[in-house]
Amino acid sequence: MRFKEAGAFLNIDLGALVFNWEGMRRYISPSSRCGAVVKSDAYGLGAEKISSALYRAGCRDFFVAYLSEGIALRRVIGDSGRIFVLHGFFSGTEREFTRYKLIPVLNTIEQIEGWLLYTQKVGHRFPVALHFDTGMSRLSFSRQDQEFLFGEGQDKLKLLEVVLVMSHLANGDIQGDKKNEEQLNLFRDIRDKVSKILGYSPEYSLSATAGIFLGKEYLFDLCRPGLGLYGIYPYIGLEDKILLRPVVSLYAKIIQLQRAHIGQSVGYGSSYSFTREGIIATVCLGYADGFLRSLGNKGYGSICGKQVPVIGRISMDLTTFDVTEVPSKDLYIGQEVEIIGPHNTIDFLANSGGTIPYELFTNIGDRYYRRYKNEEKLFSVDRK
Amino acid sequence: MRFKEAGAFLNIDLGALVFNWEGMRRYISPSSRCGAVVKSDAYGLGAEKISSALYRAGCRDFFVAYLSEGIALRRVIGDSGRIFVLHGFFSGTEREFTRYKLIPVLNTIEQIEGWLLYTQKVGHRFPVALHFDTGMSRLSFSRQDQEFLFGEGQDKLKLLEVVLVMSHLANGDIQGDKKNEEQLNLFRDIRDKVSKILGYSPEYSLSATAGIFLGKEYLFDLCRPGLGLYGIYPYIGLEDKILLRPVVSLYAKIIQLQRAHIGQSVGYGSSYSFTREGIIATVCLGYADGFLRSLGNKGYGSICGKQVPVIGRISMDLTTFDVTEVPSKDLYIGQEVEIIGPHNTIDFLANSGGTIPYELFTNIGDRYYRRYKNEEKLFSVDRK
Repeated sequence: MRFKEAGAFLNIDLGALVFNWEGMRRYISPSSRCGAVVKSDAYGLGAEKISSALYRAGCRDFFVAYLSEGIALRRVIGDSGRIFVLHGFFSGTEREFTRYKLIPVLNTIEQIEGWLLYTQKVGHRFPVALHFDTGMSRLSFSRQDQEFLFGEGQDKLKLLEVVLVMSHLANGDIQGDKKNEEQLNLFRDIRDKVSKILGYSPEYSLSATAGIFLGKEYLFDLCRPGLGLYGIYPYIGLEDKILLRPVVSLYAKIIQLQRAHIGQSVGYGSSYSFTREGIIATVCLGYADGFLRSLGNKGYGSICGKQVPVIGRISMDLTTFDVTEVPSKDLYIGQEVEIIGPHNTIDFLANSGGTIPYELFTNIGDRYYRRYKNEEKLFSVDRK
Repeated sequence: MRFKEAGAFLNIDLGALVFNWEGMRRYISPSSRCGAVVKSDAYGLGAEKISSALYRAGCRDFFVAYLSEGIALRRVIGDSGRIFVLHGFFSGTEREFTRYKLIPVLNTIEQIEGWLLYTQKVGHRFPVALHFDTGMSRLSFSRQDQEFLFGEGQDKLKLLEVVLVMSHLANGDIQGDKKNEEQLNLFRDIRDKVSKILGYSPEYSLSATAGIFLGKEYLFDLCRPGLGLYGIYPYIGLEDKILLRPVVSLYAKIIQLQRAHIGQSVGYGSSYSFTREGIIATVCLGYADGFLRSLGNKGYGSICGKQVPVIGRISMDLTTFDVTEVPSKDLYIGQEVEIIGPHNTIDFLANSGGTIPYELFTNIGDRYYRRYKNEEKLFSVDRK
């Protein structure tokens, strides 16, 4: 949405993004390389800008969920760099994978068989990744699949050109959880079996942001940070190990200010009533913009550093705040209320709404004016 | 997203949409006309298709939130028909309103003054709507604003070409709530004052879907249904007064099926564990697609009429169901799990996630394949 008609402004600091990627890259180097997860339009922040910035910083391994995300990304980063499509392929899309040099992550026996059918038809092998389950029970080769692939199905594995073998931690953000070690041991076992069957060693990858900091043994050849890139700590305490800079801030314009009298109710269902005289600020932001409805009467904003509570239910396009305590010099039509920013972190906001920062990001709509910051500085990033 | 790579399918029945609009139109006619609220991309369902269908059915009064939504809509419905922009205008956009024949809904004294500045500069009046608060305390002329406009500020009103005066019910979906009658009485009082000051009678509008069924006195000249158009009853019991047909159904493909052993945990945080042997189905749908994270371990889907519970947390792009009880003939890769449909209504789903259907709609992303149904039948709609 254009600046002059936008009710809210989303700032995305590409300099901070690259800073975070660089920080993780340095932390894991030289034993492991640093990729980037940019699925779902880079978590709602704009895959084109985000990926382009990371590519310029040196990132060469990208992960998306869908084919079309992969095609769009290939157009952004050009011919070099690897793009992994996490969902694998659906029947009938194989040719597009090879045309755009996208690497399907094969998750099921059906995907392996379908891929072999295609490659045998065209008479050429193309690189694939394999995703093994070690504890997520979500999408990847299950225990039964593994028994098959390491037993009677191993001939199928041998027919593939495997460049990456991956798994995913379920509780990476819970340090000391014994499931992490369980998954690590299962993955090591898988690594040994796969390399032996293939007769060569593809790359191995286990860790996203949280896993990176569980210990050197979790790094393997390639890491796949998502959350951390966007400046979010997966758990409290990680600040001691790495400095991440916030990437996103969000401000919404005050469109109306009004005095409230005692007993005046606010919004749908009259869920909030004033027990003293006060001032209501209405801002152009609602649950259609991803400002979760669960934040009604629970969330906060901030005006010039002064915290202001959400009052009443969140509407589709509007939210009301109690701004009674804000100095009058700071209250005017057009004033920007900080929704996510230095005084009101995304962790705090997500927590208030009973969710995680990811969900807030990915539901961000397209009615914001987006300001990408520090794009020009990207070329001066220190790559030592 | 294209059919062949989509993981989920959103069906939008334009025939049902028009059926619902027609039903409400008949219910309120001839005393009141029936408009349509199509803001936020028609609540996420696609403003172009929705508005075009409603226009063909005879709707001539549309409501959007933002200028750019209005411009896009003007291009769809052509030169006739009225488009009201609920947020009014921001300074610097006045010319676009007049260029695209959009009617700003003025909500604040500042907007009135800004509009007068513009019209006096160009030497021409353009139609506007006025929005008065009667109990929402959100966006519209507050009690203080009204005192001003009906007193010393009435000369400003007289300079406007007012075509519509509106207000909005806070508790329209709670029948018997005394606030409805309070708001009705306040609005009648506003009507009398405005008409007297202006010296002519603009149209008046108070009710959205729920208000339509509160009684004839709530209808005024124009109604503004939103929810009802999309086949959703604002409260239980309304089925006795009007038949609404569901407009939206949503299906997600099974991408993986796997056996689960006793003790096997599922997803992030291992929040679900099997206490018996079972079968897990993973579908291509996650919170990035608007399938709210609050549905983790709470929501349901349906396979061939058999209810299946969500197990584990919702991931960004994937959701896992326990499909142990589904007959094996109905379990295969590519099978579509009903997420919203006849066996799993949107009300039920919204309720399970602690929200309302609106929020589910507006957070629908763009990774669905959209099937618009019954478009061809629109011309045969009975307009009696």
